[in-house]
Amino acid sequence: DPNLKVFSLNSNMPLAREIAKFIGVELGKCSVTRFSDGEIQINIEESIRGCDVYVIQSTSQPVNEHIMELLIMIDALKRASAKTINIVMPYYGYARQDRKARAREPITAKLVANLLETAGATRVICLDLHAPQIQGFFEIPTDHLMGVPILAEYFKSRQFNGDVVIVSPDHGGVTRARKLAERLKAPIAIIDKRRPRPNVAEVMNIVGNIEGKIAILIDDIIDTAGTITLAANALVENGAQEVYACCTHPVLSGPAIERIQNSKIKELVITNSIELPEEKNMDKIIHLSVAPLLGEAIIRVHEEQSVSTLFD
Amino acid sequence: DPNLKVFSLNSNMPLAREIAKFIGVELGKCSVTRFSDGEIQINIEESIRGCDVYVIQSTSQPVNEHIMELLIMIDALKRASAKTINIVMPYYGYARQDRKARAREPITAKLVANLLETAGATRVICLDLHAPQIQGFFEIPTDHLMGVPILAEYFKSRQFNGDVVIVSPDHGGVTRARKLAERLKAPIAIIDKRRPRPNVAEVMNIVGNIEGKIAILIDDIIDTAGTITLAANALVENGAQEVYACCTHPVLSGPAIERIQNSKIKELVITNSIELPEEKNMDKIIHLSVAPLLGEAIIRVHEEQSVSTLFD
Ligand SMILES: Nc1ncnc2c1ncn2[C@@H]1O[C@H](COP(=O)(O)O)[C@@H](O)[C@H]1O
Ligand SMILES: Nc1ncnc2c1ncn2[C@@H]1O[C@H](COP(=O)(O)O)[C@@H](O)[C@H]1O
Repeated sequence: DPNLKVFSLNSNMPLAREIAKFIGVELGKCSVTRFSDGEIQINIEESIRGCDVYVIQSTSQPVNEHIMELLIMIDALKRASAKTINIVMPYYGYARQDRKARAREPITAKLVANLLETAGATRVICLDLHAPQIQGFFEIPTDHLMGVPILAEYFKSRQFNGDVVIVSPDHGGVTRARKLAERLKAPIAIIDKRRPRPNVAEVMNIVGNIEGKIAILIDDIIDTAGTITLAANALVENGAQEVYACCTHPVLSGPAIERIQNSKIKELVITNSIELPEEKNMDKIIHLSVAPLLGEAIIRVHEEQSVSTLFD
Repeated sequence: DPNLKVFSLNSNMPLAREIAKFIGVELGKCSVTRFSDGEIQINIEESIRGCDVYVIQSTSQPVNEHIMELLIMIDALKRASAKTINIVMPYYGYARQDRKARAREPITAKLVANLLETAGATRVICLDLHAPQIQGFFEIPTDHLMGVPILAEYFKSRQFNGDVVIVSPDHGGVTRARKLAERLKAPIAIIDKRRPRPNVAEVMNIVGNIEGKIAILIDDIIDTAGTITLAANALVENGAQEVYACCTHPVLSGPAIERIQNSKIKELVITNSIELPEEKNMDKIIHLSVAPLLGEAIIRVHEEQSVSTLFD
């Protein structure tokens, strides 16, 4: 369909190329560079008048650069008479700032939603939002894809020799662990961190039976990897046979790589929703691709079919 | 007035401190830092409920970081029940992207105006916008201050021994040159760059009499300093006695400092609308402060007096 155009900005070119290949289109021609003073310069190098445009951009690090690239691109597309401007955000930056946890805090996840709409986005396709409530921050239609089926496929293919248990590293992630457990027909366990008294070290209490089992930790985002590596070590100390960890969004900032390297985690399974720079790669990491999922979603949205059937 | 609160973000703290001192208030307490993954974390550390808040931020380099800081701060202030949110932007980044010069370009200066309003700004105070039309990009009230009176005062105080001529480095800046010339009771001249044929070097034709005179070049922004240094050298080659250059906004990116150092410019007069990092400073540079101008504007806006009388 000549009216379907897929563009990529700078955050995750390899993923965008994979998505375009999956769909069977060439990426749209545009250049996204910087003026001498660091201001973003965007040139869309082909007509998109009357087209359904899909823009692929993860708002990963450097998050503010990537958000501004996206907003300026949307502005350019709008002024160039695109029919629809569909934003594909494999990773949604600022998703953790989704509520006022303390007085006088911003709700940046909502601000970003407002900014995208103001710029001219007409639809947003997201993957594993930190909180599904973020869909409600938008007035425009959203599609919310899930990484769990992709992670589940991988762990099924491993054919473990022993009992598997899916572990949530904190209370907030139990629903996600439950979803993976269902697909693997495994039980769940929860790490129940508690601080007995102020200024006393946290106790890693494990709710559920993990002894002698193959434990798979799951989270949406692994950022500094503090939570997940402490959880992994607690699982081994409490008798787990082996510990695997997986997440959709490998933010992996600060001490993350060192922590994971030095932890009891045997394998870290991640997706390419965020591009992993070469220097952060390590033998322990298994890479899965979300390109078929996002590509299929783009095709279905473009053909006005349901995206929810992707998860059957 | 306890209802007047002045906050500063990270782009130009020294200027913000000077403005607060001029007004006679303490800067509001807030911390603007980064999470491990580079996301902006803002904590407003005092109540601003029902207050008229002034936020000082130049959207200078790194422009995208500074814009996002500003938007997130506005969101936090809005949610903390500020009565009015007044944005003081000594330098307005992306001002040069103020029209579609070619097909399929963004108009980022307009986008930024929309973003500020979406976040919740209720008024904007600007200084020497690259195009005064940018005021019309806003639906909220704007005040547009001018740096020319400050530059004029400085050159008056120099008491030059000889005839002065004010020179615009290009066609676009003639109105600005005219304003400085009026205040110094001097004539104007214009550098009329022309390319005789494609692929032939530009000719620097000078319109107006500059021979034996003290030439003062004026621009709003000096960025890579290509235009201004070529103009200065052309003036000297054509018989100007001495060449001074001045601008409100010293962007000074890329080769700017080297070019100015090696040029025929005797003195470069700039304001502190953009903070000049120590490593860009040089003996040739004269620093003027816009703090009294911005401070006075804040007082007048807060007291609901006219700001235009500032220029009498
Ligand atoms: N980029 C970030 N890195 C670390 N913490 C963050 C980040 N953004 C927001 N937060 C904090 O993380 C908390 C939300 O995390 P959660 O409880 O997992 O939803 C909030 O209290 C935020 O202040
Ligand atoms: N940050 C920037 N650095 C250099 N050129 C720019 C920048 N932003 C916009 N421009 C270009 O500068 C031109 C406007 O400059 P002017 O003619 O002086 O108003 C436009 O054609 C823009 O493409």
